[in-house]
Amino acid sequence: MKKDFKTAVAQRRSHYSISKKTSVSDQTIREVVDHAVKYTPSAFNSQSARVVLLLDKEHDKMWDITKESLRKVVPADSFEQTNDKINSFKNGYGTVLYFEDQSIVEGLQEEFSLYKDNFPVWSEQSSGMLQFVVWTALADEGFGGSLQHYNELIENDVKSEWNLPDKWKLIAQMPFGHPESEPGNKEYAPLENRIRVYK
Amino acid sequence: MKKDFKTAVAQRRSHYSISKKTSVSDQTIREVVDHAVKYTPSAFNSQSARVVLLLDKEHDKMWDITKESLRKVVPADSFEQTNDKINSFKNGYGTVLYFEDQSIVEGLQEEFSLYKDNFPVWSEQSSGMLQFVVWTALADEGFGGSLQHYNELIENDVKSEWNLPDKWKLIAQMPFGHPESEPGNKEYAPLENRIRVYK
Repeated sequence: MKKDFKTAVAQRRSHYSISKKTSVSDQTIREVVDHAVKYTPSAFNSQSARVVLLLDKEHDKMWDITKESLRKVVPADSFEQTNDKINSFKNGYGTVLYFEDQSIVEGLQEEFSLYKDNFPVWSEQSSGMLQFVVWTALADEGFGGSLQHYNELIENDVKSEWNLPDKWKLIAQMPFGHPESEPGNKEYAPLENRIRVYK
Repeated sequence: MKKDFKTAVAQRRSHYSISKKTSVSDQTIREVVDHAVKYTPSAFNSQSARVVLLLDKEHDKMWDITKESLRKVVPADSFEQTNDKINSFKNGYGTVLYFEDQSIVEGLQEEFSLYKDNFPVWSEQSSGMLQFVVWTALADEGFGGSLQHYNELIENDVKSEWNLPDKWKLIAQMPFGHPESEPGNKEYAPLENRIRVYK
């Protein structure tokens, strides 16, 4: 029995301790991504989101690429900590790469010049929605994941490795796997400082 | 019985034909917003989202403000169409105004200068997540809503009317109400053009 919407929203957390141990089929993971990409809204129904789902060995490759990119920019004497961090992501079973197709965004800018400056912003907002939907749906299947942003550092190598279109802009990476521990307590600011109601 | 997460995600649509006829209590609407604001994630758990919930007469006022702002910029001979559009939002019962507190974003930029350029982008992505969560949760309660962006046009008047902090940046407006008709068919691009899987 799946959780209801509000419960699923409340139970999604960032999981940094993940493993490859999973009883969920690749087909189910694929369906989670398909469903999220299909139903997450976008400005003018432009459907600018693009997703690459990397599983198992391809997932490992993704984090090896990230590690080698970081090795070039992180001082050698502090690389061990970086290495541990990237390995914690690589320990997972899969990674969702989020892109926004800039050819779609640019097409909207040309067609509706009045909103020219808005389309890139709405594209980012829509990508955020998609990231959230996949994250929560994966959690609903028992996975733990987190959201990472090594975008500029890895974008060229990632596109080259998986032969992706130039116009796909890399927005975020979501490593996921079997959660190996419960996340700690999360601090919440008082809602009365964040919400005002007038009636 | 509430819908499960995937069903709720698939059933959220844009509703433009809405009314004030509702059997959902203001308290329930308030709880939907509280829950969404609390549990939607943000970069570094910065909780930069701010929300103003306008109900009933205050909702009407919001769309009157928007109408008067538009009257100043829309040619008189094409104002009737604009007027009808704004009235379709005003016909609803409430509006959720989404803001991002720039004092939080700027604080992160100062504290973590390495990610300076990223925080405004992550703030927009997180706002997108929140918009999606509220939208879907309202739909789960039987409401229909849509996402509007009269930001620059109305921001000063809105802040002045409800005495909101200068640093709250207006991101979007979500009018909602009792859905008076079913949305039409939505076109979906083939998923094979949007998703790639490697394993």
